[in-house]
Amino acid sequence: MKSISKCLTCHVEQAQRILDKFISNEEEKWVILESILNDLSKLKYGLKPIDIAEYIYEKLENHLKIDDIYFVEKKKSNEIALKLYDTFKLKINDSSDPLYEAAKLAVAGNLVDFGAMPDSLEILVSKVTELWNEPFSINDFEEFKLALSTSRTLLYLVDNAGEIVFDMLFIDIIKNIFPELHVAVAVKGKPIINDATYNDALQIGLDKLVKIINTGLKTPGISIPKSTDEFRKAFYEYDIVLAKGQGNFEGLSEEKRNNLYYALVSKCEVISNYIGVEKGSKVFMNSKRIRQA
Amino acid sequence: MKSISKCLTCHVEQAQRILDKFISNEEEKWVILESILNDLSKLKYGLKPIDIAEYIYEKLENHLKIDDIYFVEKKKSNEIALKLYDTFKLKINDSSDPLYEAAKLAVAGNLVDFGAMPDSLEILVSKVTELWNEPFSINDFEEFKLALSTSRTLLYLVDNAGEIVFDMLFIDIIKNIFPELHVAVAVKGKPIINDATYNDALQIGLDKLVKIINTGLKTPGISIPKSTDEFRKAFYEYDIVLAKGQGNFEGLSEEKRNNLYYALVSKCEVISNYIGVEKGSKVFMNSKRIRQA
Repeated sequence: MKSISKCLTCHVEQAQRILDKFISNEEEKWVILESILNDLSKLKYGLKPIDIAEYIYEKLENHLKIDDIYFVEKKKSNEIALKLYDTFKLKINDSSDPLYEAAKLAVAGNLVDFGAMPDSLEILVSKVTELWNEPFSINDFEEFKLALSTSRTLLYLVDNAGEIVFDMLFIDIIKNIFPELHVAVAVKGKPIINDATYNDALQIGLDKLVKIINTGLKTPGISIPKSTDEFRKAFYEYDIVLAKGQGNFEGLSEEKRNNLYYALVSKCEVISNYIGVEKGSKVFMNSKRIRQA
Repeated sequence: MKSISKCLTCHVEQAQRILDKFISNEEEKWVILESILNDLSKLKYGLKPIDIAEYIYEKLENHLKIDDIYFVEKKKSNEIALKLYDTFKLKINDSSDPLYEAAKLAVAGNLVDFGAMPDSLEILVSKVTELWNEPFSINDFEEFKLALSTSRTLLYLVDNAGEIVFDMLFIDIIKNIFPELHVAVAVKGKPIINDATYNDALQIGLDKLVKIINTGLKTPGISIPKSTDEFRKAFYEYDIVLAKGQGNFEGLSEEKRNNLYYALVSKCEVISNYIGVEKGSKVFMNSKRIRQA
């Protein structure tokens, strides 16, 4: 999907938040933001939002001399979510449909996104708990469940730190119900915004549950051409692919493979209008819906 | 007062809102916003926010070939506020302190600001009514009242369309209580954002109540060096000056004259931090407070 002018404005706002986080001197902030505005002013129409992000975050990292802007927040997101793990697992297992409850939580967890959401970590986590009970605005979950029952392999593309703890819980439930299913999780190759990397998977112990595949990417979403051979092979060979979050959706929205599902919270107008849902909606959909659109 | 990086981001957001208002083609929006980002990226640190606004709004007007971006909204703001005039006047005259009630309403009216506020006109007007009862966070009103009782002339610098109807009501009450006081109202010379011009004064009949002075300005705030001789003369010769709104405050914040009062709603972090109040506060203060700060 193509970026629109709002994506430029959104990246200015993201840059502002990051400068406010790391720099106190106003003149220094001004000079860096001026340079970011100049970088943005050169971008051609037709780029994906994740391409703008990759470009601008690299510029910000160079200005700030920091290679992992949300390092602290990612670690803390994982810790906060891990504290909730056992309680949430009990709640899910006590429910009438644990698989569906776990899916709804995993999608609500997609709110923990420092690119799209200006809120503090604490507020985001409380919003996740609120959003958990909301139904999916687009709901192909039954179809996904059927696919799980008839498939051998599932490739699960995670999105953000913190959120991956809820993904792990969902995967744990999936593996209990479909013990024969082989599940692999794909993570980003390098730090970008608060996207989950191999280190996040290790921190929460996800590597003990499933195989971790490194996409090698520094884009905040999957870009097949830029990804590792291992990931590209898995993407086309696994029976089912579940892609979490806006960035992975943006990157894959033109992909043609079958049994590709998107699970996300639609956090910005651009994605919401593209998918055709209200901003803030929980979506669990087969990619066919977009290809047909 | 100097702009900070947030002022650049704020002007990108203002440009985005204006492009969304006038242009439907996404690629066209992209190209214009890219050009605006490039213009902003060349601005030197040290400018006042109102100078950035004057510069960027002129660029937007050229791109859009429109010389009065909020023409419709200004007219409508005045109409909506005029419908409330008589009811509000009754309420004020029934109160224990009409002058103070009218001042509180006139300051609440400063919310009708399309530069700082992203809300629709309807929402803004309902917010004005809510904010009316809030006290002033900085309150030099008794001092201002005393000054009125011992002065011959008051120069009232209005800010926005719609808001000026509540200014007119305040001025009407002032003139009833101090019939000997000569009052003049200064308006912007050319359309800028939704600042009140001579046409707005005519539309609401303010010219029948007081003398209207044209500042000649197209900045969304008073800039003494750029203003007309008539205004500059009045500014220094009138006994009391009351400046409404953030823009007029920005423009005059270094001015030294006595009996200069600022009355505004602090709508952005930059102004709020500069004045030292919470965002959203109503302020009625003597300029000495800022000079001493």
